Amino acid sequence: MKSLFSTALKFENNRLRVLNQQALPQKEEWLISSTIADMVDIIYTLKVRGAPLIGVSAALALAQFVEQGADDQAIFIAAEQLRSARPTAVNLAYCVDRLLNTYKNSNGNKESVIREAELIFEEDARLCLEMAKHGAKFIDDGDNILTHCNTGGLVTTGIGTALGVIIHSHRQGKKVHVYVDETRPLLQGGRLTAWECVQQGIPHHIICDNMAATLLRQSKIDKIFVGADRIAKNGDVANKIGTYSLAVLAHYHNVPFYVVAPYTTVDLQCATGADIHIEQRSADEVKGAKGTFGQVTWSPEQSPAYNPSFDVTPNNLITAIILDKGVFAKDSEVYSSISDVIG
Amino acid sequence: MKSLFSTALKFENNRLRVLNQQALPQKEEWLISSTIADMVDIIYTLKVRGAPLIGVSAALALAQFVEQGADDQAIFIAAEQLRSARPTAVNLAYCVDRLLNTYKNSNGNKESVIREAELIFEEDARLCLEMAKHGAKFIDDGDNILTHCNTGGLVTTGIGTALGVIIHSHRQGKKVHVYVDETRPLLQGGRLTAWECVQQGIPHHIICDNMAATLLRQSKIDKIFVGADRIAKNGDVANKIGTYSLAVLAHYHNVPFYVVAPYTTVDLQCATGADIHIEQRSADEVKGAKGTFGQVTWSPEQSPAYNPSFDVTPNNLITAIILDKGVFAKDSEVYSSISDVIG
Repeated sequence: MKSLFSTALKFENNRLRVLNQQALPQKEEWLISSTIADMVDIIYTLKVRGAPLIGVSAALALAQFVEQGADDQAIFIAAEQLRSARPTAVNLAYCVDRLLNTYKNSNGNKESVIREAELIFEEDARLCLEMAKHGAKFIDDGDNILTHCNTGGLVTTGIGTALGVIIHSHRQGKKVHVYVDETRPLLQGGRLTAWECVQQGIPHHIICDNMAATLLRQSKIDKIFVGADRIAKNGDVANKIGTYSLAVLAHYHNVPFYVVAPYTTVDLQCATGADIHIEQRSADEVKGAKGTFGQVTWSPEQSPAYNPSFDVTPNNLITAIILDKGVFAKDSEVYSSISDVIG
Repeated sequence: MKSLFSTALKFENNRLRVLNQQALPQKEEWLISSTIADMVDIIYTLKVRGAPLIGVSAALALAQFVEQGADDQAIFIAAEQLRSARPTAVNLAYCVDRLLNTYKNSNGNKESVIREAELIFEEDARLCLEMAKHGAKFIDDGDNILTHCNTGGLVTTGIGTALGVIIHSHRQGKKVHVYVDETRPLLQGGRLTAWECVQQGIPHHIICDNMAATLLRQSKIDKIFVGADRIAKNGDVANKIGTYSLAVLAHYHNVPFYVVAPYTTVDLQCATGADIHIEQRSADEVKGAKGTFGQVTWSPEQSPAYNPSFDVTPNNLITAIILDKGVFAKDSEVYSSISDVIG
């Protein structure tokens, strides 16, 4: 397999390495994955996170195993082990199946599997760049941009989705300043987006999620860019909890609200956002904070907490959805055309 | 001095006791204040918090000192020490000056100082009850109410302001359920309001601040009640950061938004909210969390953070301001009349 490099995933000198996202930003620790068992553990323990990156990581691990000389039976067992490391991540199953199909269609040609894994890695980065090019048209020199959760180089093999647009604009030489929503309860903004901004040298300030409204009122935010976990056929968007709140606040203050995602995020089986199931997570996440940085619980033991991990933003609050295939704005034959373009 | 009891302040058997709010909710620790130095330390280290309660605590400490037989000079020095324990809290200076004036006007009658301190304690509780009676008219059986920060028995000698209205309704037998905003960065909701709800047996769920919008969209919140730090003459309200965000979200979802405060919160010297100075606090509060529960920092060391401690909600987003002296609704000769009633 050829050498491959991204922010959180590398293949070089026959070594597959993964940046441990559980340890960030306190520690930049690279884990070596030499076996299928190594990668299954890395995925299962969330040391690699973000749907696209999980899929690519599994593909590289499988290709590495093939390169090590595994036989047919071992390859099929390994694929099954990887696929079940995190059953809910769609991209994981998609990437593993894609490699297996390549293997079958080429009559067991191992080289073809390795080429396909390289292709998956490179394609993911290319999609980011396409999104970034489309999205950067909306960013002006001097913009103050608010973003939510983490959508950068840590979740893809490229520069990311929403944060990718910002990074691309920064590299183009535009002066941008980012307000980073800390993104309670799991703090992906305060931990990971802030870390990426430091790495990229992008001027930024971390804020608590409840401060965005005041900044909007003071005209300190020109645009909001967020990612997406799933996009329904009508353009409703499911994303990290707190996204809908920002969309309403942006609407009230007449600030544009952009969603950035690869085409694989559009789910044509979902007619509207109402069809998207929202996962309720543990109350413990709300009653305190936990990570490599330590663990604290501040709420009374007896208090229950409510903890939806995502919310749905209706299409009428979204200025434009930026996909790798193009921009879908609500005032230009919008969402009805998403399926045409993707199909 | 007679026996006096409130949630966080007590006088009994010649002992003045203060509930250590820095230790809540992990530990219910009562501190004994026997000297002026004790109370100065308690105020300075924020073990008593909330503008009204700080003022009352200082008044009781000064009255206790008088009762212990202090002479004129010692009383004046003690008053000065208490007043400077926290120079920005208006209520503290107000209460101390009120006792000193009583002392002077009664030609050094010590009994009159003690009576005045008792009066201050009881008046604070009575104001809460007046607000609660006015506010409870807006609460219906079965209501789901969202509140922000901590505005209950911990900050007054009575049942509180916004949370006081909820507690009063609960005691009236109305079925209420409270969504408690955790209130980043200092977590007064997740720590203290949740604790008060547990103490009062009020059904509640803690949420992260960014979850309120989703609950509003799902019609899971019927009303929002918040307190106030300062109310301008035109009805603009300064309160804990995150309040303005809730007001916009309530407006968008057609949910009533009530502000509850004693008349002392209205500042007729402030024409509008634009005249209210907003304190910027340390970035460390945003980059992690800290309390008796422990201390963690999750953000990169190099990242700056933005940390305004209050925000201003314009009068057009407020359904009604509930004072002890009455209710000021925006569709009933509103805010122009606030000064008439208070004056």
